[in-house]
Amino acid sequence: MASEFDLIRRYFSRPAPNTLLAGGDDCALVVPTAGKTLAVSTDLLVSGTHFFADTEPWALGWKTLAVNVSDCAAMGATPRWATLGLALPAVDEGWLAAFADGFYACADAFGVALIGGDTTRGQLTLSVTIFGEVDANSTLKRSSAQEDDDIWVSGQPGLAALGLAHLQGRCTLLDPIRSNCLNALHQPQPRLALGLALAEQKLTHSAIDISDGLLADLGHILRASGLAARLQLSQMPQEALHAADCALSLPALLAGGDDYELLFTAAPPQRAAIAALGQQLALPLSRIGTTYSGSPGEIDVFDEGGQRIHLGKRGYDHFQP
Amino acid sequence: MASEFDLIRRYFSRPAPNTLLAGGDDCALVVPTAGKTLAVSTDLLVSGTHFFADTEPWALGWKTLAVNVSDCAAMGATPRWATLGLALPAVDEGWLAAFADGFYACADAFGVALIGGDTTRGQLTLSVTIFGEVDANSTLKRSSAQEDDDIWVSGQPGLAALGLAHLQGRCTLLDPIRSNCLNALHQPQPRLALGLALAEQKLTHSAIDISDGLLADLGHILRASGLAARLQLSQMPQEALHAADCALSLPALLAGGDDYELLFTAAPPQRAAIAALGQQLALPLSRIGTTYSGSPGEIDVFDEGGQRIHLGKRGYDHFQP
Repeated sequence: MASEFDLIRRYFSRPAPNTLLAGGDDCALVVPTAGKTLAVSTDLLVSGTHFFADTEPWALGWKTLAVNVSDCAAMGATPRWATLGLALPAVDEGWLAAFADGFYACADAFGVALIGGDTTRGQLTLSVTIFGEVDANSTLKRSSAQEDDDIWVSGQPGLAALGLAHLQGRCTLLDPIRSNCLNALHQPQPRLALGLALAEQKLTHSAIDISDGLLADLGHILRASGLAARLQLSQMPQEALHAADCALSLPALLAGGDDYELLFTAAPPQRAAIAALGQQLALPLSRIGTTYSGSPGEIDVFDEGGQRIHLGKRGYDHFQP
Repeated sequence: MASEFDLIRRYFSRPAPNTLLAGGDDCALVVPTAGKTLAVSTDLLVSGTHFFADTEPWALGWKTLAVNVSDCAAMGATPRWATLGLALPAVDEGWLAAFADGFYACADAFGVALIGGDTTRGQLTLSVTIFGEVDANSTLKRSSAQEDDDIWVSGQPGLAALGLAHLQGRCTLLDPIRSNCLNALHQPQPRLALGLALAEQKLTHSAIDISDGLLADLGHILRASGLAARLQLSQMPQEALHAADCALSLPALLAGGDDYELLFTAAPPQRAAIAALGQQLALPLSRIGTTYSGSPGEIDVFDEGGQRIHLGKRGYDHFQP
């Protein structure tokens, strides 16, 4: 007789490509590509902390995997396989079907095979471990930024934070901006093609995905690399700044998390190649500043008039929307 | 400024052997051994469902990893790397230090490197994904038992269930039996050396670790292989039967979970080699029955007098202590 949790497992039993054995045994079996390095990342998402309990389940399924695909993208790794741990307070088949559809939509979009999992009763909790493959000599690390690198960012950071603020009633967005912001929040697009191209063409010195916020994640690169940075507000992607007539626009751009755009540093001679890559991928790539040899992790942001923007005593933390 | 969760991460930042990059970047990087197949397993353990909230943290740390090492053992795979997701209701440094010590003790004992993780606030939840390596042609699967195989089990299944029953006040154990049972419950010993030797010497047709209970896990092998089985009670390991003067002894032996002994099937000509392996490992290996071509998953257990033991309408489920 199938238990409640056997039923759950059935929603996650679609065929797993590129897999010797998935599910139904003590371990799944996969064959790594000869000569490749394995890139592994894990995330634990808890209801109430990382997402609202009433988040639309298709979007939650998509995002649960997408944030892990983004970690592979930021490393220059091709995502291959994932496992899913799922704790549920109760079994709701409609919720499960939609969650699984969203999860598999992301898996199919980025070539990931779900090879194993575990289900149990508990506070709604999602645990994904993803593993990708990368050439050891073309990984995109945080720690290898160089002095006088250009600092680049993809897409329009800040939109996800504004979408969240809108849902919380902290600002009011109008379509089509509202749709853009809610899409950024609910169905983030991991910049996998960008990450893979940057790694393959060896265009960058360092990279990270923006999950904590632009300044916070740049700070991770800078501290790991022992550098400081200057950023120009006028060179930043402007959509978040113009999206809402509210005090949250600048904080959203600089400190809004959950965007999963890529932030990377590269030597100035790569500018043309990076611009060409952005054109090819139809993805805006903005050159927003430079690194320099200064106090590790220090970031100054300058406005159009060349004035340093006061970020407050707590620096970018202060800007968290 | 280090956040509360940065502090947590420090407890899990010991050096990771056999790892290119562990922690501090979007992904960890490891180099798989050329020609090996990767065996992957994941477990999600939730407080109140899988363990008591007040479980001694060193033991919980040990067991959290041990149950995953056991999955590798049951597959004949050498465990190499693991990730740990940890949700905590609050930060208790004493608890964390002991939990990390137990986790790393198991990691060191079985050669596992902790390469990544995630920490967050939530109901106490532990999520481990383990990666092992195995030769593709010597994996120990559930699905390849053959007709007329001997059925073998390692160690003394049932002790962990009796230890749990003792803690719940459902039976009374006296030392030294009590210690054995509580050790089996709190610090299970994955049968890794056994699993690796069985795989390397190609002695078995199928294997599983006993996490759900002897009959339940044998049922998994039988259904996956399309076979039935007959077991002889008199040939089973007897420690659980003699441990407690209570009605739970037989259920503990047949249906007690959480033991992490190995259950495997092998052709009769392997008996001498398997017995020699048990001697070499100083681990009792009991030949408890045989498979036959019958209704897939059906199991009959016979007592000393050759009488079939009535397992009730619900079969072995009924025996769950």
